[in-house]
Amino acid sequence: MDEHLVETKIRSEEILKSDFLHTFRDTVALPNGLEATREYVVHPGAAMIVPIFSNGDLLMERQYRYPLQQVMIEFPAGKLNAGESSLLCAQREFKEETGYTARYWARAGMLHPVISYSTEYIDIWLAKDLQEGARQLDEGEHLDLITVAFDQAMDWCRDGQITDCKTLVGMMWLQNHISGAWPLNWQSS
Amino acid sequence: MDEHLVETKIRSEEILKSDFLHTFRDTVALPNGLEATREYVVHPGAAMIVPIFSNGDLLMERQYRYPLQQVMIEFPAGKLNAGESSLLCAQREFKEETGYTARYWARAGMLHPVISYSTEYIDIWLAKDLQEGARQLDEGEHLDLITVAFDQAMDWCRDGQITDCKTLVGMMWLQNHISGAWPLNWQSS
Repeated sequence: MDEHLVETKIRSEEILKSDFLHTFRDTVALPNGLEATREYVVHPGAAMIVPIFSNGDLLMERQYRYPLQQVMIEFPAGKLNAGESSLLCAQREFKEETGYTARYWARAGMLHPVISYSTEYIDIWLAKDLQEGARQLDEGEHLDLITVAFDQAMDWCRDGQITDCKTLVGMMWLQNHISGAWPLNWQSS
Repeated sequence: MDEHLVETKIRSEEILKSDFLHTFRDTVALPNGLEATREYVVHPGAAMIVPIFSNGDLLMERQYRYPLQQVMIEFPAGKLNAGESSLLCAQREFKEETGYTARYWARAGMLHPVISYSTEYIDIWLAKDLQEGARQLDEGEHLDLITVAFDQAMDWCRDGQITDCKTLVGMMWLQNHISGAWPLNWQSS
């Protein structure tokens, strides 16, 4: 029923195979029969963790994001390793970046950060009953951990201190979960 | 105060200058003095429109997004032209993609879709008092317009029919604006 929208691949060319950005340029047939090119980054997918302390406070990170030349406030997240499940990725990245583990996990949903030029998706996990431990940051990874009250984090979303898209969506999930509108199935790990 | 986080450019190399993805690889000094590489796409920025009918329904688009190989439900958005203001971009893209104009506009905030590998930002505009007109789609642009009730769109955010990150954040703004938590300054155009 979507033939009037769908674009069909004619050929695909790898235009950048680098350390990080694996990029293709495809020639496609448009619905009207004309040709166009589509360039995009191939990404393995990622998982984000929304970590909730028992008093409702949130565990967040402050990390320098070089493309934006600024320190960003964000929830922990990281890329899936080959063959790794979304939950195992979330648990691994959470432990590596923050040192924490969580006893209860719930998958909230999924987001696509940049639908025009990347295949990336991010699975959204909420985590609670947090236990502190030792961080194991990747070499070259530098980040601060901060504890933020829910209301404070919502104010930061409104006022522009939080602009990272995945983190905004994590807060949207949390807000609607707390209100009871968006229930979740918690599983123990 | 963030010296322990900041990365400093040592040199920059253009690694892809193509039709669409202008990409650089920079060598940076990490806070600990070691070197690392950072690859990123340079993007001019964009504006998104959250169009609200007088009965509260929303104007949304269904568009095939080739990198994901699926039709996505999203708010209208587009890239800034050189020298163009965010509001003029929002008004131009809204008219081109939907045919509609809006009498009242309010800037809600800004988001960064992909802080790890792009400079892109998206300004978020809410628009109301909509007037229908003729679309002027770019050649090769194919999209459906749909009218969606607010509650329906929220359900789609919860249930995974809407996964586009900018659109989720647009809904977060709308939800908090409607509840009175996040007020806006409306200007007439």
